[in-house]
Amino acid sequence: MSKAVTIFDTTLRDGTQGEGISLSVEDKLKITLKLDEMGVHYIEGGWPGSNNKDIEFFHRVKDLKLKHAKITAFGSTRRKLTPPEEDANLKAILDAGVSCATIFGKSWDFHVHKALQTTLEENLAMIYDSVRYLKDNGLEVIYDGEHFFDGYKNNPEYALATIKKAEEAGADWIILCDTNGGTLPHEITDIVKDVKSKVNVQIGIHAHNDCELGVANSIAAVQAGARQVQGTINGFGERCGNANLCSVIPNLQLKLDYTCISPEQLATLTNVARYVNELANVNMPVNQPFVGTAAFAHKGGIHVSAILRHAKTYEHITPELVGNKQRVLVSELAGQSNLVFKAQELGIDFNANNSETKKIIQDIKDLEHQGYQFEGADASLELLLRQASGQVESVFEVESFKLLVAKTADQPVVSEAIVKLKVHGEEVYMAAEGNGPVNALDNALRKALLQYYPDIQDMHLSDYKVRVLDEKDATAAKVRVLVESTDFQNTWSTVGVSTNVIEASWQALVDSIRYSLIGKSRIDPAKDEQRERLGLVNH
Amino acid sequence: MSKAVTIFDTTLRDGTQGEGISLSVEDKLKITLKLDEMGVHYIEGGWPGSNNKDIEFFHRVKDLKLKHAKITAFGSTRRKLTPPEEDANLKAILDAGVSCATIFGKSWDFHVHKALQTTLEENLAMIYDSVRYLKDNGLEVIYDGEHFFDGYKNNPEYALATIKKAEEAGADWIILCDTNGGTLPHEITDIVKDVKSKVNVQIGIHAHNDCELGVANSIAAVQAGARQVQGTINGFGERCGNANLCSVIPNLQLKLDYTCISPEQLATLTNVARYVNELANVNMPVNQPFVGTAAFAHKGGIHVSAILRHAKTYEHITPELVGNKQRVLVSELAGQSNLVFKAQELGIDFNANNSETKKIIQDIKDLEHQGYQFEGADASLELLLRQASGQVESVFEVESFKLLVAKTADQPVVSEAIVKLKVHGEEVYMAAEGNGPVNALDNALRKALLQYYPDIQDMHLSDYKVRVLDEKDATAAKVRVLVESTDFQNTWSTVGVSTNVIEASWQALVDSIRYSLIGKSRIDPAKDEQRERLGLVNH
Repeated sequence: MSKAVTIFDTTLRDGTQGEGISLSVEDKLKITLKLDEMGVHYIEGGWPGSNNKDIEFFHRVKDLKLKHAKITAFGSTRRKLTPPEEDANLKAILDAGVSCATIFGKSWDFHVHKALQTTLEENLAMIYDSVRYLKDNGLEVIYDGEHFFDGYKNNPEYALATIKKAEEAGADWIILCDTNGGTLPHEITDIVKDVKSKVNVQIGIHAHNDCELGVANSIAAVQAGARQVQGTINGFGERCGNANLCSVIPNLQLKLDYTCISPEQLATLTNVARYVNELANVNMPVNQPFVGTAAFAHKGGIHVSAILRHAKTYEHITPELVGNKQRVLVSELAGQSNLVFKAQELGIDFNANNSETKKIIQDIKDLEHQGYQFEGADASLELLLRQASGQVESVFEVESFKLLVAKTADQPVVSEAIVKLKVHGEEVYMAAEGNGPVNALDNALRKALLQYYPDIQDMHLSDYKVRVLDEKDATAAKVRVLVESTDFQNTWSTVGVSTNVIEASWQALVDSIRYSLIGKSRIDPAKDEQRERLGLVNH
Repeated sequence: MSKAVTIFDTTLRDGTQGEGISLSVEDKLKITLKLDEMGVHYIEGGWPGSNNKDIEFFHRVKDLKLKHAKITAFGSTRRKLTPPEEDANLKAILDAGVSCATIFGKSWDFHVHKALQTTLEENLAMIYDSVRYLKDNGLEVIYDGEHFFDGYKNNPEYALATIKKAEEAGADWIILCDTNGGTLPHEITDIVKDVKSKVNVQIGIHAHNDCELGVANSIAAVQAGARQVQGTINGFGERCGNANLCSVIPNLQLKLDYTCISPEQLATLTNVARYVNELANVNMPVNQPFVGTAAFAHKGGIHVSAILRHAKTYEHITPELVGNKQRVLVSELAGQSNLVFKAQELGIDFNANNSETKKIIQDIKDLEHQGYQFEGADASLELLLRQASGQVESVFEVESFKLLVAKTADQPVVSEAIVKLKVHGEEVYMAAEGNGPVNALDNALRKALLQYYPDIQDMHLSDYKVRVLDEKDATAAKVRVLVESTDFQNTWSTVGVSTNVIEASWQALVDSIRYSLIGKSRIDPAKDEQRERLGLVNH
């Protein structure tokens, strides 16, 4: 059997059924381009019969120059007792102007009776008529057997009858869906093998993650003969999500020798995953497999010393294969090796065994104890290390700030900030308004510094997070602010901690600007020469 | 073979090696009690030979009255060429005063040479001596074969030799560890079967989640004969984490008929998972399987209409079995059914088909378009629905607020707020300080309302989140603030959106207090009578 596996991405359809996920048509078009570059074979753009926004998507996607992905429209089989040509859903698929349709039909007798409230025979006719109708209209047809595994477990003959009907009608692919997400890998294996022995058309798998087995089920299905995997980027989707393509693809290609996309395309996986998260406005869990920022991050002291000797000791693949990179974390679990490694990364000379290094480690641990978290704020840590090693110039000093926020009845809220700085010995006193307090302080700070440092206009804030620490203290609790800034080339993060969210924001803001002005960009440990120099060689 | 599976929790040890996870000794003791109640068999409390905080834990845990969990201390085999009685690590385990030790040794010849830099024979002696030494000191010994699967794949004879040495020395359990997290389920199956045929002692599995297969690997191992699963709550741990016990346990018990904990204990799973996240100060992904707030949340219109007819249609298990509950989400994908269901939940009478309901749905969609997210802010949604149905009394009106935040040099930051309200026709003008702007506004608001509503002192803020929307707009971007409040019985969430974080916080704060004063507690849809009345019957 061929080792080529077709990747069907439903981030734009099933993915948007996940809580908190909402994509504009613009977002969907951008993601489409990104997925096409990554080598995905089908992109399910939406459900035109259900969602006006999707109708607009299908209209506008025609203007995109795609390299090889096929756009497909989703929908259901015709309504019971309605001829296909009169079914609004099927009509919407045709009107979408796609070359491929993905329609789902019932495989589980229970659903036919309870959800559709019709007969088993009528359901078979619904499947046949709908597939046939779309085929007659010149479309490629992918048939999704909804709840296939539950249906098979309850009434295998009927479940098989439904997909054979789809095959009879000319379906190009039959996809077995674990819609409830409750099936186990060994059941997937047995059922897919049985189906494979009974139909001739190509088979695919559509798994959900309700048992945290979406990826395992997809792999088991492929090993049992399925040749299409349906899933989403980052595993977005209804309830616990769909099978996560960002784990399925590397597992199939790097561990089992299947081919989905090219190695060059696989190396863009981390970038694609983060891009989609940004557009969906969702935080990626740091520990997400393959693409998470912590996927190859080593914290325990023993792991770090071993890693520094040989990467294979604690890494199951080379991070760069999926576009990720190794990181060494500095925390209270840090041994000397973590901090020394970090410093070396930055080109700072630290002697692992001297008392000064020990003092810095202690200072960092104390700050972390107060709530500073350097793991997510590399730039603040770098500033600390540089200050400790005496390597940093003073670009400006802060004397004071004042902030006023006022709102009356239905008037817009007003935010004004005044900052007083000392730059190169001169006193600078500047006021500014803003859309909010952090914006007002940011504007005042930049206005004050612009005359001395014109480059400051290139950098801006790109993300801002607040977390309440010591929640037992409620509104009096300390808050930790993490600020991400960018200047279109680099991105860096800084941290501030205080019981006052404005002061915490101010600390992070000031660190961020200081870091930018000091001008040391973070050395990328993934660069080969750097890794060689530091003795990190991947075999 | 018995169907009883032993659960070994390493949240407090391996779990803390995850990025962003840090637990105080207090936290660890609280979690220990919680895990013991849940029925976990072993709790790995820490690594006394590596971490002073852990030494304190083992000292203080002796004062806890545990029902049946055994506390175990982690450590490595003795250092090369060092007698066990002179090894500081082993000594620390003995000093911890535990009845059970969990020690790890090398199974992979590559590690013996590269990481330990010693001979294969010395490594075998290290394993034998260490296990023997601890057994001679009266401890139960669990031996973790580190990197067992990679070791077996590279040199099966040596890998088997290492664990047979541990068995020979009297180890009570042999745990096969997939330390790099790169092994696949079918490999786990084959290797565990082979090991089972070659050793007599009980076998366990310790999987990591680098391929998103930690849960699948744990299950495969049990099906192949392993009878202990090591993992963490919520899958915390180094890199991508350990096998997630919150998925492993329900899969084993509810799907495969193994016994780990009692059904009553299983029903506390969601509560335990959230408790641990709170203490670790980590957000639970909403879509986490079994215990996530979205694990049984239905968003797509078709799913919701089916669910309202019969829960089994889109739920693989009854949520209450793991202490979770069904939710219906209201969003732009909402059909009439979602909103009507929500309203019914609240005892508000909405006619699904009238123009008023359609208008409310449109209003909600518009607000969501502006950035309000009602999925995470049930109380704000409820206020909206009540206002729309004319059911809400005006508890107070806001006329204006002013806020001043000032910081000079090394003086502490000052935050002062003035609020002007109208309560029962009277004008109230109140000022207050605070640790920060939100605290100052909160204090002023409460001071103003206290004389009218004394109950207000029972409620307080328990969490506060800020998210930047439209990040392209940087510091001028809209922010969404989610505020969680509690009065020790109920917890509720409210939302505010503005380009000004203070105004957004103010909105969420005011909604939160309004909600509390209006006094309608959220009806819990998991309550049986309620579910019956609404026609939601789980078969």
